[in-house]
Amino acid sequence: MTYIDIIGFLAAFGTTISFLPQAIKTIQTKDTSGISLSMYSLFTVGTLLWLIYGILSLSIPVAIANAITLIFASIILVYKIKYK
Amino acid sequence: MTYIDIIGFLAAFGTTISFLPQAIKTIQTKDTSGISLSMYSLFTVGTLLWLIYGILSLSIPVAIANAITLIFASIILVYKIKYK
Repeated sequence: MTYIDIIGFLAAFGTTISFLPQAIKTIQTKDTSGISLSMYSLFTVGTLLWLIYGILSLSIPVAIANAITLIFASIILVYKIKYK
Repeated sequence: MTYIDIIGFLAAFGTTISFLPQAIKTIQTKDTSGISLSMYSLFTVGTLLWLIYGILSLSIPVAIANAITLIFASIILVYKIKYK
């Protein structure tokens, strides 16, 4: 594994795991006033497309990272719709 | 270009552009109470690492998409720090 690969793994880990604290905060506070519905609608669809792309192109890292992100993004989106 | 490539481009477009409505909303309302500081700290660092990875691995689409996302994410992070 080269140092470029390591940067890629750290990048994927950072952007994937970042949605976990947002999901926890949103579940705990139900405060979604500052969260953009357009953002999470677009982002959830985009992440679903990344997951499909990862599966179809047999890219396991892309599929796994986006499956995890899709769970977090969907939770935030559902809370935004429910508690807007 | 195969249909898998098209799905990949749509996915990249969706997840990149999704941060634009959030940045606009945050700039206009300054309402950051529901936004997670941990999320945008992690996400901004992650996107910067993706940008570096894209440049070092000569992957122009990865570099461009993450350069755009980095701008939006940085704006949201700065507003979160300034108006928390």
